[in-house]
Amino acid sequence: MLERVDKMKHNKNGILSAKGFKAAGGHTGVKRSKKDMAILYSQVPAIYAGAFTTNHVKAAPVLWDKNLLTEKSPIQAIVINSGNANAVTGNQGIEDTKTMAKTCAVKLNLNTNQVLICSTGIIGQPLPMEKIVKGIENLVPTLDDNRESGKNAAEAIMTTDTSLKEYGLIGEIDGVEVNMGSMGKGAGMIEPNMATMLGFVLTDVNITREMLQKALSEAVNLTFNMITVDGDTSTNDSVIVLANGMAGNPIIDKEGKAYEKFFNMLFESLKYLATSIVKDGEGATKFLEVNIQGAKSFESGKRIAKSILTSNLVKTAFFGEDANWGRILAAMGYSGESFNINKVYLNLESARGSIGLLKGGVPLGFSEEKAKEILEERDIKVLIKLEEGIEKVTAWGCDLSYDYVKINGDYRT
Amino acid sequence: MLERVDKMKHNKNGILSAKGFKAAGGHTGVKRSKKDMAILYSQVPAIYAGAFTTNHVKAAPVLWDKNLLTEKSPIQAIVINSGNANAVTGNQGIEDTKTMAKTCAVKLNLNTNQVLICSTGIIGQPLPMEKIVKGIENLVPTLDDNRESGKNAAEAIMTTDTSLKEYGLIGEIDGVEVNMGSMGKGAGMIEPNMATMLGFVLTDVNITREMLQKALSEAVNLTFNMITVDGDTSTNDSVIVLANGMAGNPIIDKEGKAYEKFFNMLFESLKYLATSIVKDGEGATKFLEVNIQGAKSFESGKRIAKSILTSNLVKTAFFGEDANWGRILAAMGYSGESFNINKVYLNLESARGSIGLLKGGVPLGFSEEKAKEILEERDIKVLIKLEEGIEKVTAWGCDLSYDYVKINGDYRT
Repeated sequence: MLERVDKMKHNKNGILSAKGFKAAGGHTGVKRSKKDMAILYSQVPAIYAGAFTTNHVKAAPVLWDKNLLTEKSPIQAIVINSGNANAVTGNQGIEDTKTMAKTCAVKLNLNTNQVLICSTGIIGQPLPMEKIVKGIENLVPTLDDNRESGKNAAEAIMTTDTSLKEYGLIGEIDGVEVNMGSMGKGAGMIEPNMATMLGFVLTDVNITREMLQKALSEAVNLTFNMITVDGDTSTNDSVIVLANGMAGNPIIDKEGKAYEKFFNMLFESLKYLATSIVKDGEGATKFLEVNIQGAKSFESGKRIAKSILTSNLVKTAFFGEDANWGRILAAMGYSGESFNINKVYLNLESARGSIGLLKGGVPLGFSEEKAKEILEERDIKVLIKLEEGIEKVTAWGCDLSYDYVKINGDYRT
Repeated sequence: MLERVDKMKHNKNGILSAKGFKAAGGHTGVKRSKKDMAILYSQVPAIYAGAFTTNHVKAAPVLWDKNLLTEKSPIQAIVINSGNANAVTGNQGIEDTKTMAKTCAVKLNLNTNQVLICSTGIIGQPLPMEKIVKGIENLVPTLDDNRESGKNAAEAIMTTDTSLKEYGLIGEIDGVEVNMGSMGKGAGMIEPNMATMLGFVLTDVNITREMLQKALSEAVNLTFNMITVDGDTSTNDSVIVLANGMAGNPIIDKEGKAYEKFFNMLFESLKYLATSIVKDGEGATKFLEVNIQGAKSFESGKRIAKSILTSNLVKTAFFGEDANWGRILAAMGYSGESFNINKVYLNLESARGSIGLLKGGVPLGFSEEKAKEILEERDIKVLIKLEEGIEKVTAWGCDLSYDYVKINGDYRT
């Protein structure tokens, strides 16, 4: 299904690539000095699709957004605050989310249920609502479609992120130019089933709610659900897509060429955000791509790939630039999936070369120097061929370093 | 079922506490200079029970030992080498294990199938069989029942362990004194379903094979299967019990008072080994006990407890001495178990005091100073009360420190 993406062009306007959207980002005081609030706005009501954390403990804003998804409410604004996740905050948290939506709605002359809310940061602290409300009121008038506003928004949603995650694409559907902007945040607590981070996509594509949700769910399965930093699924993870139709393409209401083109744009955007998050994984020094070929099924291959990428022993070995295929095999072994170990092929690859470590389940003699050279690179691919079926699966992760421990040993205090 | 253990007395002879056993430990050259081989020996054929790794990839010695368990072979010797796990070594590995058993059997005048083999260390390297064979031949004549020999054996099975793990108990069954010695190793790759380490118990109790295996399986479920260091299940984990009957107590062939007494001794021994392993967890600075009360079922409570103890975010928070109950709750939330969050009670306790963090799902205001004080201790208890059922579950783990990363980034090279 995936056609080559190189037909798409990049749009330098990042999150504000698509027609009819505005953004703002600023400081409200939840964080000491950094930007801590973003608002995204569509000039016209937009179709909304969402995918949310599978954590049994869901933050108040997630419940709010899920409810609006069920209601099929057309959306015009998203308020995102960082620094405080408004999770495990009981009824007060629910009230505070509603107040945020209402405050924004009043300022923008919308209904409360046209405003989505996302929060990220520490858990279990009530939101400082005075600052939040004032922040929304001050920020709304600054909404703009210039480059700076988009950047401010992308910056304002960061927590432990070290890099801004923004992406823009220009595509063509049925002869009409369409655009898609996206931004995301997340660097820890990254192990979806679903997002484990925040992702926002704003597009001017004209598409039905059903097809938008279908595309999002499928693209999330192949991107956000295939990344892992530390195996922890957060209480707040959300990926939200707004499509306002302003590109004017004939409406996409079924599968076919137009849907495929849209799907590819969405897939590329989410893959960009997801892999950016992994590359920015807390303390990460390596970006790992695990490719499983010949898996029994997608789920089976996914479990094997995830088992490898969540193994602390595998992760520390990559940090140590050690071709420790034994740990990879052990992690495959406890994935819960059965496979014929006598048919396993294992290969490591980077810009510096490629080296086979295991063939037919038997260790290949290999040059430790060559392996070391390959592993000194930041981007490393692990290729595993099984002979259980024909499914191909790709997943992404990172290593486990001193800095991960440092960042997470210090985070709250 | 568990009566108080303080009726039991400690036997200072460690692994050689029971009648009729001998041990030896020495250097064969698999490791550069440290002891790397142990032999345990029973003067008479002993009943044997075992519990092994659930990893789909099983090392050659595990296959050997499992086969002898199926064969119900009476056992007289165990050969254990450290430094090389003889895992993922194909047919050569199987042959090498057999050669080890045969070499030992010839020297001790036993049948090959009376000798168990355990290996621990790096994966995927063929055993240096010349050294191993010579090592067995040299070590057998040094078998002795003195204190030094037991210590040598316990020392020889260590890999990244920083402390010797040995334990001895004296009990009384049907008016007869019985004894139980045990030793273990393991500091990383600790997440059973089953052992993730090596554990050996030698007892002179007179018991049937069926009751011995039953007691072992049940005790392992409550001990080794309740610990986690890094979530990785190794290819070699084994817990082996030999019972030679030399205490002369009336044979234990059914449940009842005598079985219970035996079970308690076994449980205490395995709990000692399992918690010692966690305390010696690679790089660990904290020993964490998680108690779940009011769980729906044992399995449900176990999954919740394990989810907490394998969360890198929880582990780094304890390393940072941070009362970050939000991460604990998030880990409970993605355990896959559902529970009423509005009924959750959460408490932290150490020798310095006790502090409630959450009640009825609502964060309790607490003194950060008091929390810090409690968390400065090494041994910390996390108590979680649910209202889902009546099951109580205890599990053990440790924090995640810089040193874990250092140890495992460097292990192989």
